Amino acid sequence: MSKQVKIGIDLGGTRIKIGLVDKKGKVFLRREVDTPSSSSRSVIIDTIVKNLEATIKDAGLKKKDVACIGIGVPGPVDSRRGIVHYFPNIKGWNNVPLKAILERRLRIRVSLDNDVNAMALAEYTFGAGKGARNLVCLTLGTGVGGGIIINGKVYRGSTMLAGEIGHIPLNEKGPRCNCRGIACLERYIGNRYILKRARKSFGRNITLESLSGLARKGNKRAEAIWLDVAKKLSVALTAVINLLNPDMIIIGGGVSKAGDLILRPLRKELKVRPMKGQALHVKIARAKLGGDAGIIGASLLA
Amino acid sequence: MSKQVKIGIDLGGTRIKIGLVDKKGKVFLRREVDTPSSSSRSVIIDTIVKNLEATIKDAGLKKKDVACIGIGVPGPVDSRRGIVHYFPNIKGWNNVPLKAILERRLRIRVSLDNDVNAMALAEYTFGAGKGARNLVCLTLGTGVGGGIIINGKVYRGSTMLAGEIGHIPLNEKGPRCNCRGIACLERYIGNRYILKRARKSFGRNITLESLSGLARKGNKRAEAIWLDVAKKLSVALTAVINLLNPDMIIIGGGVSKAGDLILRPLRKELKVRPMKGQALHVKIARAKLGGDAGIIGASLLA
Repeated sequence: MSKQVKIGIDLGGTRIKIGLVDKKGKVFLRREVDTPSSSSRSVIIDTIVKNLEATIKDAGLKKKDVACIGIGVPGPVDSRRGIVHYFPNIKGWNNVPLKAILERRLRIRVSLDNDVNAMALAEYTFGAGKGARNLVCLTLGTGVGGGIIINGKVYRGSTMLAGEIGHIPLNEKGPRCNCRGIACLERYIGNRYILKRARKSFGRNITLESLSGLARKGNKRAEAIWLDVAKKLSVALTAVINLLNPDMIIIGGGVSKAGDLILRPLRKELKVRPMKGQALHVKIARAKLGGDAGIIGASLLA
Repeated sequence: MSKQVKIGIDLGGTRIKIGLVDKKGKVFLRREVDTPSSSSRSVIIDTIVKNLEATIKDAGLKKKDVACIGIGVPGPVDSRRGIVHYFPNIKGWNNVPLKAILERRLRIRVSLDNDVNAMALAEYTFGAGKGARNLVCLTLGTGVGGGIIINGKVYRGSTMLAGEIGHIPLNEKGPRCNCRGIACLERYIGNRYILKRARKSFGRNITLESLSGLARKGNKRAEAIWLDVAKKLSVALTAVINLLNPDMIIIGGGVSKAGDLILRPLRKELKVRPMKGQALHVKIARAKLGGDAGIIGASLLA
């Protein structure tokens, strides 16, 4: 299998995942470590290199057997030049030529993109989006991220910043977002805002898991919160659907674990709010590849 | 110049424009007639054919000298199969195979698309969008239409319905739109809504031209209306800019004749409301080709 092996790296704010991925998108060997916290950039890079080399060794391979490495990272990048602009949740990464750094240390070709583009590519190629031509993938978590596939390719935009579904405004006026925008989707359904609303409604701290559990048992207050998340999401997705007329919207990320609590009311709204032709065509699907999407997508970047 | 000549046809709700277009996008011979009103489909098709043949004759050409004909039409189409789905403002056009009908009668190759896609293609190739790679073109008129160019090509979407910028929701709740949606951009800034608002503010009927004239003379009520149009437009364009990260937004159509009354406050809003990277990059331009955009764009469809 020499020179057939692709490696995908999913650099997250809390975990670094490394996997050997075969041609069919199966991860046949994986390694996962904590992202060094309170650390400098070089510690994270050292951790990536060390664990990557260990993974290759574990597989009984040599570096020269590896065709290429892809890495998906949690923030905006210049994927053509392989430069990290910055990470919203990891300090000290401003304009880092990560591709060049890794290539120099590893002597293997490296490709770089942001994690949501990698996920979109994985779901398009091997997951929920198989058979679609144009799709939009979103991740619901701390932030609300988006990746766009157009005519089978990641659409990155003119300065590689496309896909910011989390920053579609839901209202003319409303709360200020971290991005400096007003009334952005993320400002309503980013997980901290859901948690805040739950705390207010229940008078105590409550996890997203409990909120889902309560809603599934029929708790009206919990149900109301998920229903509102779905409705807010449907407004932004109406914009996406009317504008892009995609085959499919794929939803992943931690918050999407609420599953049908979000998807059922979301599908209902998206049958009636977007324009008819677009609404009849688009499918709303849950991401299929779960925690492996990042690794698989990264392996497809090269 | 035989077989170099392209003809563009711009079928509008009120006028049919036909033009011979050279390689540089110059219309060197044109003909314009009223769209037959209160007429059946066949009367409109006869009018197109008759005037097209007359235009070719006027140019001292024969049909065999014409390489191809493109036609831009005021409604959704299947441009691949050359079928008009329907026209919102002309009755009796449901699923009409216009390409096949014209080809049979003319014995010249015909291409078909909607008028906003044709305009986007014209502005991209010869107008305000020269040099851009990704752009969004919108027309402000009775309706608010949109055309998207991605990587230098018209992006039509999965069922050829993409580009509906007029139906991006501006608010979670609000007035019902003709499209069945809620709080769509068009429902606020389609020209009839601007006129309605002006009537309310001034206590009498007032044209868009007068409304512009008054605002230019410093009339506060007129200024306030145009400022609000610009602000509402900026909300929808924030969604477009954050999502697509385009090089350029091009604005045309009748309402855009208000020019700087809209463009100045619009540019100001779009410097601060979208995300910084996207906002710094995108240019907001007025359409350059004016009334010829439809003909030129149609001639480029083939």
